[in-house]
Amino acid sequence: MRELTLVAFLLICFAAKAQNTPSPLTDEQTLKGIYTTALVKNQGYKWLEELTEMGPRLTGSDNATNAVYHFQKIADSLGFTTSLQPVTVPHWVRGEQEVANYNTDGKEVTLNPCALGGSVATQKKGLKAPLYEIRSFEQLDTLTTQLEGKIAFYNIPMDPAFINTFFAYSNSAKQRYVGALEASKKGAVGVVIRSLSATINDLPHTGSMTYQGADVKIPAMAISTLDAEQLSSDLHKNPALQFFMKMNCESKDSVTSYNLVAEIKGSEKPDDIIILGGHIDSWDLGTGAHDDGAGCIHSLEAAWLLQQMNLLPKRTIRVVFFMNEEFGLNGAKVYAKESKKENLNHVIAIESDAGGFTPRGISMVAPDSIVSKIRGLRGLFEPYGLHQFTESGSGADISQLYSKDLVMFGLRPDNHRYFDIHHSSADVIESVSPRELEMGSASLAAFIYLLDKYDITAK
Amino acid sequence: MRELTLVAFLLICFAAKAQNTPSPLTDEQTLKGIYTTALVKNQGYKWLEELTEMGPRLTGSDNATNAVYHFQKIADSLGFTTSLQPVTVPHWVRGEQEVANYNTDGKEVTLNPCALGGSVATQKKGLKAPLYEIRSFEQLDTLTTQLEGKIAFYNIPMDPAFINTFFAYSNSAKQRYVGALEASKKGAVGVVIRSLSATINDLPHTGSMTYQGADVKIPAMAISTLDAEQLSSDLHKNPALQFFMKMNCESKDSVTSYNLVAEIKGSEKPDDIIILGGHIDSWDLGTGAHDDGAGCIHSLEAAWLLQQMNLLPKRTIRVVFFMNEEFGLNGAKVYAKESKKENLNHVIAIESDAGGFTPRGISMVAPDSIVSKIRGLRGLFEPYGLHQFTESGSGADISQLYSKDLVMFGLRPDNHRYFDIHHSSADVIESVSPRELEMGSASLAAFIYLLDKYDITAK
Repeated sequence: MRELTLVAFLLICFAAKAQNTPSPLTDEQTLKGIYTTALVKNQGYKWLEELTEMGPRLTGSDNATNAVYHFQKIADSLGFTTSLQPVTVPHWVRGEQEVANYNTDGKEVTLNPCALGGSVATQKKGLKAPLYEIRSFEQLDTLTTQLEGKIAFYNIPMDPAFINTFFAYSNSAKQRYVGALEASKKGAVGVVIRSLSATINDLPHTGSMTYQGADVKIPAMAISTLDAEQLSSDLHKNPALQFFMKMNCESKDSVTSYNLVAEIKGSEKPDDIIILGGHIDSWDLGTGAHDDGAGCIHSLEAAWLLQQMNLLPKRTIRVVFFMNEEFGLNGAKVYAKESKKENLNHVIAIESDAGGFTPRGISMVAPDSIVSKIRGLRGLFEPYGLHQFTESGSGADISQLYSKDLVMFGLRPDNHRYFDIHHSSADVIESVSPRELEMGSASLAAFIYLLDKYDITAK
Repeated sequence: MRELTLVAFLLICFAAKAQNTPSPLTDEQTLKGIYTTALVKNQGYKWLEELTEMGPRLTGSDNATNAVYHFQKIADSLGFTTSLQPVTVPHWVRGEQEVANYNTDGKEVTLNPCALGGSVATQKKGLKAPLYEIRSFEQLDTLTTQLEGKIAFYNIPMDPAFINTFFAYSNSAKQRYVGALEASKKGAVGVVIRSLSATINDLPHTGSMTYQGADVKIPAMAISTLDAEQLSSDLHKNPALQFFMKMNCESKDSVTSYNLVAEIKGSEKPDDIIILGGHIDSWDLGTGAHDDGAGCIHSLEAAWLLQQMNLLPKRTIRVVFFMNEEFGLNGAKVYAKESKKENLNHVIAIESDAGGFTPRGISMVAPDSIVSKIRGLRGLFEPYGLHQFTESGSGADISQLYSKDLVMFGLRPDNHRYFDIHHSSADVIESVSPRELEMGSASLAAFIYLLDKYDITAK
């Protein structure tokens, strides 16, 4: 029970700080205390279990809003001041299990598909048409009449050679987001895309798409990377094969949901706000354990760790669970608009929306002087495995707050596994390692503690 | 298909080297080529699938020896010169599913136990006795007659505060290895240990134990961390509860199995050997996908990558699959003895036996001058996420070769998840990420390439 002895010792030291005496601890000791508390208490993992037990949190669903209510209660019980910010969000529903199949070589091949988020349904009886395979965006640009009356089959793999899988994802995501839009302009009647997964496996991955600017809305589904390989091979042997797809998804009327805002006022600079957050909505195939349950939990737990250990910042700390990142960032836009109206002074913004894996570093959007100060702190994080402090963006939700007076950061976990599970039925609690999740929360808490202590802000 | 274009380009460049013209590539380009080939071809993951499909590879089992034969054929087909080195190994068998239960509060609690490797069986009818809980090794030392006629229940958790879970494991593993031996000296009739797992879960984890020096051999089993917490709580309420355990495991006669040795002679320094390896035996609850299927595959694939890309070292490269690391390093001892007899000149030894997770660095046992040369190469590995180059051991098998003329290294993957699966039924292919595995193989290949190119050896 050595760990309990250590925690007891650290809590005594932290208690000294609570009595407004200077902390007797070095930064190294403080960070050790933060990481130890996270790993011993496992509070974040327990919260993530609660969250995922509520089911998928698709934007517009009752589950999504109920998750906001549930965590408002938790934040209230911890002594945060909470509020709910109304957000009008789309309400798309998947409907029955989608169907996709084709006949070749005298046998029927049945696939395991999923509708893309926001897609229209097929006709009730389904859609049957020949396929046209598209292997690159360059090829798409050269097409003239080839797609007419056909189902466009986008089969553009994520490039496995990228070490950072997010880069591979960015390069291939266009097929999902505008694949239907572009194909419809060329006369296609439906779209099948290869799932955006970094490995060959049998899970379909959903995600958002747009019809903006389309004259005709055509239905779009994803199939697994394994199915895409098989289909491509069968299509090569039998170019005339008829593909059948059936989906009865539907866009319903918009509904009102909420951002959750939970804050603790700063002791010395209450008007300066440190915001940290993730998005509470998820896709519906899994339970959004990594995307972005982990990010919400990281944010809440980081603030909780600082609170538990009497390390709360001089500045106000504000945890935000943004609603509807997946279907268009509505929550983040509302939050930014309201902040402007209230003339709020955000000085530091941190987002976690890259999964609950082992943290590898922090990405930064900040002036050179800030970047170099932060790189000066790297040694403190080395024992915990954080070594990448790069200028490579922050996060989609907090980016809505962009101003030159705001420094923005993103937690960067290891990402090799992220796109195996992203937007698929594998994004469930079983794919989260408790220790890896806790390391993320502790890293955020430690990072905020140091930024605040050393006044590392842009103004 | 960008990645294929890149691979094609790199292969053209590497082909130039094959024709004995100086490589036109920088180290950065060479490493990019190695990692790209690993991630695109996925050869190691395919081999690991083949290996794990053969079933568990407990020392002394046909499966273990068959795995050696299977990979000898693969190595032969790749043009390696192979040989099998006979090793006499123990042959312990688990027998039927173990049973453990107790009655408390008027209901029966059934646990999910496993015998420790090498344990004797209970009597046929099982063993029923009261428990005595041991919470620390210090407490064990103070015990006098308390264990007499009782089952010793070692409930010493791995300390979650260690960031490196291997340190936590080392600190707690004594309860498994000598728990029965020490308890028998104090009159205990059986042993139950808390599984060596870093998190609370419901899987029992097996592992080796010793009776060396014991007058009486008492049976020993592990229960899951979850079961241990429950049992501890029930025991607190009902100290007189009777624990029932039944196992019919058995130590059979020793059998002959083999080390697999596969080499490719060096072009310039054929007498200088670079050895890289892992152990081919595994525990029987899973299929040893991480422990140490991953290490064997890392080793073979690293050599294969160098061969594929015409980057084979000036020195001889030798891949060894060691037999029986788990029950006493017999294969490594035979290998070391035979090497001495043949007067072989090993100059570099590398082991991978810490799982197939994302590689984080390389540990080193080498003179300061070598350590500092290797740290000079760190920049080359930073893009691939390797940042820890520490002097913290190498590996159990290659350590048998220790000499001051040999520099020794261990691959160090991320280890947060390792003890969730280690020695349990979760150590199966599904727990391995293809990309993470391939990153390990590529890292070994790149490391060997650089050591050989820059003659980073101790003599």
